[in-house]
Amino acid sequence: MDANTLGIIAGILTSVAMLPQLIKVLKEKNVEDISWLMSAILITGLSLWVWFGILKEEWSIILSNGFAVLVNLVLLVCLFKFKK
Amino acid sequence: MDANTLGIIAGILTSVAMLPQLIKVLKEKNVEDISWLMSAILITGLSLWVWFGILKEEWSIILSNGFAVLVNLVLLVCLFKFKK
Repeated sequence: MDANTLGIIAGILTSVAMLPQLIKVLKEKNVEDISWLMSAILITGLSLWVWFGILKEEWSIILSNGFAVLVNLVLLVCLFKFKK
Repeated sequence: MDANTLGIIAGILTSVAMLPQLIKVLKEKNVEDISWLMSAILITGLSLWVWFGILKEEWSIILSNGFAVLVNLVLLVCLFKFKK
């Protein structure tokens, strides 16, 4: 496989990885075992990747990480909303 | 901030993000709310990033994603080990 195709597949996978976690949280409304610090660090890091993408004018980096930021922001809101 | 520094900080943050989750799991041994599918997709995606790094001969990509693969592999093992 060439590096570009590999990068696209890798980027899609790491971007959508948090989706099953978000769906599970929205369904079950249980968040006790999930670390909010993980979510917060991830949002900070992914946002910096978006900024990096803007500087480099790389749309694939902006879009994939921007999508992941959104998923993780909704997850972080749920972590506080469903906290017991 | 220049793009290279930004990329390094972003890479460190997204690589270590899962550490607080792993520490929480190792301490509390509760994993019911965590999605194993999230963990599995993440490991696949991160491994492809390592492969991408090898093709591009980019040590920063190999090391940061390699570290994240390790953390997520230990997490995935814990998810099955501590499952009730």
